[in-house]
Amino acid sequence: MNKLTIVKAENLKAKPDSDHLGFGQYFTDHMLVMDYTEGKGWHDPSIVPYGPIALDPSAMVFHYGQEVFEGMKAYKTAEGQFSLFRPDMNLKRLNISCERMSIPQVDPELLLDGITQLVSLDKDWIPEGEDTSLYIRPFIIATEPCLGVRAAKQYKLLVILSPVGSYYPEGIHPVSIFVEDEYVRAVRGGTGMAKTSGNYASGIRAQEIAKLEGFSQVLWLDGVEKKYIEEVGSMNVFFKIGGEVITPELSGSILAGVTRDSVMTLLRSWGIQVIERKISVAELFEAAREGKLEEAFGTGTAAVISPIGTMKWGEEQIAVAGGQTGEISKKLYDSITGIQKGVLEDPFGWRNIIV
Amino acid sequence: MNKLTIVKAENLKAKPDSDHLGFGQYFTDHMLVMDYTEGKGWHDPSIVPYGPIALDPSAMVFHYGQEVFEGMKAYKTAEGQFSLFRPDMNLKRLNISCERMSIPQVDPELLLDGITQLVSLDKDWIPEGEDTSLYIRPFIIATEPCLGVRAAKQYKLLVILSPVGSYYPEGIHPVSIFVEDEYVRAVRGGTGMAKTSGNYASGIRAQEIAKLEGFSQVLWLDGVEKKYIEEVGSMNVFFKIGGEVITPELSGSILAGVTRDSVMTLLRSWGIQVIERKISVAELFEAAREGKLEEAFGTGTAAVISPIGTMKWGEEQIAVAGGQTGEISKKLYDSITGIQKGVLEDPFGWRNIIV
Ligand SMILES: Cc1ncc(COP(=O)(O)O)c(C=O)c1O
Ligand SMILES: Cc1ncc(COP(=O)(O)O)c(C=O)c1O
Repeated sequence: MNKLTIVKAENLKAKPDSDHLGFGQYFTDHMLVMDYTEGKGWHDPSIVPYGPIALDPSAMVFHYGQEVFEGMKAYKTAEGQFSLFRPDMNLKRLNISCERMSIPQVDPELLLDGITQLVSLDKDWIPEGEDTSLYIRPFIIATEPCLGVRAAKQYKLLVILSPVGSYYPEGIHPVSIFVEDEYVRAVRGGTGMAKTSGNYASGIRAQEIAKLEGFSQVLWLDGVEKKYIEEVGSMNVFFKIGGEVITPELSGSILAGVTRDSVMTLLRSWGIQVIERKISVAELFEAAREGKLEEAFGTGTAAVISPIGTMKWGEEQIAVAGGQTGEISKKLYDSITGIQKGVLEDPFGWRNIIV
Repeated sequence: MNKLTIVKAENLKAKPDSDHLGFGQYFTDHMLVMDYTEGKGWHDPSIVPYGPIALDPSAMVFHYGQEVFEGMKAYKTAEGQFSLFRPDMNLKRLNISCERMSIPQVDPELLLDGITQLVSLDKDWIPEGEDTSLYIRPFIIATEPCLGVRAAKQYKLLVILSPVGSYYPEGIHPVSIFVEDEYVRAVRGGTGMAKTSGNYASGIRAQEIAKLEGFSQVLWLDGVEKKYIEEVGSMNVFFKIGGEVITPELSGSILAGVTRDSVMTLLRSWGIQVIERKISVAELFEAAREGKLEEAFGTGTAAVISPIGTMKWGEEQIAVAGGQTGEISKKLYDSITGIQKGVLEDPFGWRNIIV
C-alpha cells in the first residue's frame, strides 16, 4: 500500500440541520478509496471528493454479493476533541468478515490512519446535538468485471461518513419486537458471523412484515432448530432474568458486536453476572410469565442500547419492564455514550482521540 | 412503464475469438436499463451502449445486498434464426426472487420484449461454434442512496449479454465433487429458493477450499441436518439409482432450475421414472457401495448437463459410472442442446424464436 493521497473537494456541501439527521441519509464532502488488484495487493489509497463510483455492470458485487462492511462512529467530546470508540475492534472484525467471504485482508493500522485523516478533514460534519454522531461506514466490494462464480481478483474499499441522529427518531425508547419463526437470518456454516450484505438482504422481508404488523424489529431464532434466540434486528440482545444478565453465546451465526462486548465488560465491572449461553424463546417467555424477566435490550453501534418494551411470539405477547426503559438499559446507555462523548471516565481505554 | 428507447453505440467493439470465450468475460455493444422509483414504478426502459454505471457509494446494494438476477441463453439455430430457451420460466422465477427479496415485480412481457430487442440488436455477437451461446444476465439492484436497513425505494434493472463457450473448458466431461459438511449455502426460511447474490457469496469460500483440494464443485447439504443433498455448485443435481432417477425435492432452500424442470420432462417422456424426494448423502454413498449408483449429474443453464465422475465425503471417495459420462447424461445433453440449437424437434414448445 502506497502513501495516501488527498484531493480536496472544490465546493463544500451545505450541512444538514442537526435536528433532523435521521440515519445514513447525508454524506460528507470526502470519502476514502483504495483498490485491490491480484498480484499487486491493496494500492493507491486516496481521499477524494464524495461522489458516484463507476462500475462495470458485470462487476461481481452486483451478481454474487462478495462484500463486507463495518459500522463505527466518531463523536465530538466535551473538550471539543474528536474520538472514535474501540475502532481496533471494528477493523479486526472487518478482517474476520473478509476471511469468511474470501476477500483479501486489509492492514488495520493503515486503514485506521486513513479513516482518521478522513474524519479530520470532514470534522466540521461531526454534529454536536445530543444523541448525534458521525457514522463511519467502511466497505469492500468485488469489482472484477466477470460473471464466473468465484472469488474476485479486484476489489474496491471505500469509507464514507454520515452525520446521524439517534437511530430511532424517539431516542432511547422501548421498542416492540416480533419473534420471527418462519424466516431465518443466518445458520451455522453460513455467513452470520460476518458483516456481509447477504445477511441483511435475507432479513428485509421479515422486517417489512413485522413493520406492517406494527412491530419495530424482528427477533431472530437459530436456523437449525428455530428455538434459540440469536439477535434482534441488526443488534445483539440481552435479557435480565432473576438478577442475572444473559446473552446468546456466539454460535457462528451471530455477529460479535462491539457494543455487546462493551456491555458485558461494563456489567461485570459493576458486579453484575453476565452469562453467555444458549437461551430458547420458550425459556424467555416462561421467565416472563413467572415475572422473572426484568429487562431486555438490543445493543449495536447505531442505537447503542435499544430497550425492548414488548415481545410477541405466536399468539402470546409479553410486556418487559412494564414497557418502560429498564434501569440497567438506561445506565448502560448513559455510560457508553458518556465514555464516547468524553463526559465520563474511560476506565477501559475505549475512547480513541483522533484530532 | 413507458416505451423502450434505443441509443445505439457509435463504435462497435471487436468480437472475441469464439474458440476462447470462457464464461462471462466479454460483453456485447449494448445493454438494457430500466429504473424504479417509489410512486412511479418501473420507468424509462432503454437500450444504451454497454458501459459503466455510476452509483452513489451509499447505494443500498453495496451494503445490504438487495439484489436478484437471472441467467438464460440465446442460440443461433441450424436455420440461422435466433432462439431463447423457455424464457418465460426465467422471468417467472425473477419475480419469485423479487418477492422474497422485497423488490418490486417486473412485467414479464415487457421485459421479454426488451430482452428480445436487445438480443436482436446485438445478434452478431451470438457465437456459432459448438457449445457456444449468448448468455443473458438480467439483474436488479437497490440503488437508493441510504444506509437504513430496509427495502429500498429505488432500483435499477439491467440486462447484459455475454458470448460464452462451454462452462467447463473441457466441454461435457465428468467433474469431481466434494461433499461439503462444514459450510452451508442456504437453509429453509433463508433465501436459497431465490436467485440472489448473497447465496453465491456464502458459497465462495467452500468452493475455494474444494478447488485447492483438487475438486471441481461442492455438493451442498441442507442447512438444518447437514444430511440431505441440495445442489451441486450452482446446479441442481440428479442421481440414477437402480434404474430410477432421483432429484432432491424443492425444499425452500433449493433453486427451482429451468434445466431441472426440462430434464424431468424429457426423462418422463422417455419412460424413465423420476422421483423428487429427500435423499441423504448416506443413502447415496450406500447405493454407490452396493454398485447401484449408475449416474450422477448437475443441471443448469451454464453447463446444461455436468456429469459427476467422482465424489468425496469425509474419507470416502466413490467413482460414478466408472468416471465416464453416463448414457443418460449424454442423451440429455444432446437432446437439450439439440432443441436449443434447432437441430432436434421441439415437442414441448421450449424453443422461442426471436429473430
Ligand atoms: C447483525 C448485527 N448484529 C449485531 C450488531 C451490533 O454490532 P456492533 O455493536 O459492533 O455495532 C450489528 C451491527 O451494528 C449487526 O449488523
Ligand atoms: C444455485 C443454482 N442452482 C441451480 C441452478 C440451475 O438453474 P437453471 O437450470 O435455471 O439454470 C442455478 C442457475 O444456473 C443456480 O444458480
